[in-house]
Amino acid sequence: MAQTDPDGALTGLRVLDLSHGIAGPFAARLLGDHGADVIKIERPITGDFARTLPPLKQDAPFPEQSLLFQYLNWNKRSLALDLRLAENKPTLQKLVEQSDIVIESFRPGRLESWGLGVDQLLDWQPKLVVTSVTNFGQTGPYAQYAASDLTLQALSGIMQISGQVDREPLKHGLSQSFYCAGLTAAYASIMAYTAAQADQFGEHVDVSIHECLASELVLNQSYYAFLGAVQGRRAIVQDPFAGEPIATRKGYLAFQTGGGAPFETFAELFDRPEFLEKRFSSPPEREKRVAEVKALLEECVADRDAKEVFLAGAQKRLLLGVVQSAEDLLHCEHLKERQSFVEIDHPATSTQLRFPAELAKLSLTPTSVRRRSPTLDEHRTEILAQIGRGR
Amino acid sequence: MAQTDPDGALTGLRVLDLSHGIAGPFAARLLGDHGADVIKIERPITGDFARTLPPLKQDAPFPEQSLLFQYLNWNKRSLALDLRLAENKPTLQKLVEQSDIVIESFRPGRLESWGLGVDQLLDWQPKLVVTSVTNFGQTGPYAQYAASDLTLQALSGIMQISGQVDREPLKHGLSQSFYCAGLTAAYASIMAYTAAQADQFGEHVDVSIHECLASELVLNQSYYAFLGAVQGRRAIVQDPFAGEPIATRKGYLAFQTGGGAPFETFAELFDRPEFLEKRFSSPPEREKRVAEVKALLEECVADRDAKEVFLAGAQKRLLLGVVQSAEDLLHCEHLKERQSFVEIDHPATSTQLRFPAELAKLSLTPTSVRRRSPTLDEHRTEILAQIGRGR
Repeated sequence: MAQTDPDGALTGLRVLDLSHGIAGPFAARLLGDHGADVIKIERPITGDFARTLPPLKQDAPFPEQSLLFQYLNWNKRSLALDLRLAENKPTLQKLVEQSDIVIESFRPGRLESWGLGVDQLLDWQPKLVVTSVTNFGQTGPYAQYAASDLTLQALSGIMQISGQVDREPLKHGLSQSFYCAGLTAAYASIMAYTAAQADQFGEHVDVSIHECLASELVLNQSYYAFLGAVQGRRAIVQDPFAGEPIATRKGYLAFQTGGGAPFETFAELFDRPEFLEKRFSSPPEREKRVAEVKALLEECVADRDAKEVFLAGAQKRLLLGVVQSAEDLLHCEHLKERQSFVEIDHPATSTQLRFPAELAKLSLTPTSVRRRSPTLDEHRTEILAQIGRGR
Repeated sequence: MAQTDPDGALTGLRVLDLSHGIAGPFAARLLGDHGADVIKIERPITGDFARTLPPLKQDAPFPEQSLLFQYLNWNKRSLALDLRLAENKPTLQKLVEQSDIVIESFRPGRLESWGLGVDQLLDWQPKLVVTSVTNFGQTGPYAQYAASDLTLQALSGIMQISGQVDREPLKHGLSQSFYCAGLTAAYASIMAYTAAQADQFGEHVDVSIHECLASELVLNQSYYAFLGAVQGRRAIVQDPFAGEPIATRKGYLAFQTGGGAPFETFAELFDRPEFLEKRFSSPPEREKRVAEVKALLEECVADRDAKEVFLAGAQKRLLLGVVQSAEDLLHCEHLKERQSFVEIDHPATSTQLRFPAELAKLSLTPTSVRRRSPTLDEHRTEILAQIGRGR
């Protein structure tokens, strides 16, 4: 077996990150995590607008306050460059000539309007992969529309099936649409890079956040097309063993049948033989007496903590969903043992930040955080020297 | 510029899909969509357990009823092989020798117990990438626990921040944790493959669905660690312009400030100058009179359809989230123009199935559905002939 290569799987790969916000920068960071050398171009003075996104650290100077920015931009070096100015075009050309992948997230047509369209970039570097991550993609009638995580979740059909049928549709927490599109952009960039290595031709990768959500996270269009039925939100009354969270002494716990253990194991877990009776042990019977089942379950966990019940049940391969909070996650013994978090210095204060850092563990070429997120324009001198010198 | 290569970016790549369920098969399918040759190994008689997952097509014969299976396994050929039997080991060895990537999702330790652990596979093919996609990863105290989409969403902290603060935590629709892990497994496999091409050494990629969710889709651990505040579910009372869906004559519509247009544009959209008054135009003032703002918005959309208002507002770059249903998505003019859906034959009936099919559009090496999902063991003869012949 080979030695571990601490430089990562993509060592030698050069990425130019022209993007801003969440999805594009997350994609570029994932490539950086696997060893790519990533140069981030930001507009002068204000930088990437993600530098203004909350949560903000008030004791840090502008534009170094955003926690989110810190999370999305490690393993990158920063150069401030106004792409709208023709005088900066030669600098960008040099950067592009030394890149394998460009990631950008401008509104479709904007780069072209500055004389920096995909054709121009490919003219400068014919093996280049240009990945565009935008709300609605490069084509189609919605291409120029504004969007947010909320509007994208609504439009993609996810909200329609989330929440309960008697209430409004629900949006999922945080900005998951953007993270999902970022993942997609990262993998599609590498696919295209693999092809460019083989056939010597670069190409344009068009990632639509709307499409990622509509196509990948939901199967409900097919559900409809296939069965003629519209999948809706959850029923109000349902078997408590179908996953509705139950309040314990401390925290919520969801119960679910299936998994590796028979239903009888719940009786064993709580030492309550009632669960073996037909009125509790069969799903159609439970549906008939939801209140009774729920009351019994609540009684079983009233003087226990959700986490403790989860651990006892999990040993028996029961399906128990303990609803973990942020604090729980930071203390989660499993994530701790797997070293899922990294501690990173804040660039402008003495604080240490703790972030989740690894999506996939590669045995020989592990991901790593080699540098914290850059301050705006932090690496101007070294980047300009590097491109002045050529490769 | 080069000609389009209809074979895809990963043409020539060989993938052996030993996985079952959603995450692993989705990862293998994504590689297949980009041109990889994917052989799927299923257990005899029943096949991948996803063949039993709903929605089911009752007029198709077992085990060809599951719509979900059809979605997850196109661009693959199927061979039924019982990996538990020593007599099948030489066949598997031949298959592994002719593969670049193996994707598997067995409980940690199971492949080892059959004499097919990662070391054995790498012994047969030293440049092989073995990607394991499991609930909790290969290591750590939870590694052997059972899990489901629900329990993983709970454990990863997503439920804690989803829904409203006065109600129980909510699970997101469908099985998004698995799709997300599938995406991660696909990109991590290609990263590792790129490294193996460069240094001639394969490796083991360990993807934990729990970790994918906990690390990538939520930033709330950091939120907590950074600010000492626990991010909770949404407040009950909030500005109607913060995204709570409003019922229109037909469908729900969410309103949000920000995006490309100033707040005044809402006044223009509805031809209602009231929105310009301070009590409506400033967020803190709106917070004070939520019921009044909501009533005014409801009045504005009472005799209009959500989609129509969305289109009118989107032209002005307002942020409007029209909550689309499955039916809406199938008729979405934007997805239609972008050709986001494919029509695929059902293998065992004369039905045509319609699925979302593309996550990223690569200009020169487009993804494609070259074959529908296989029936169980459909390609036995050709696969065995192929490996009998050697490469």
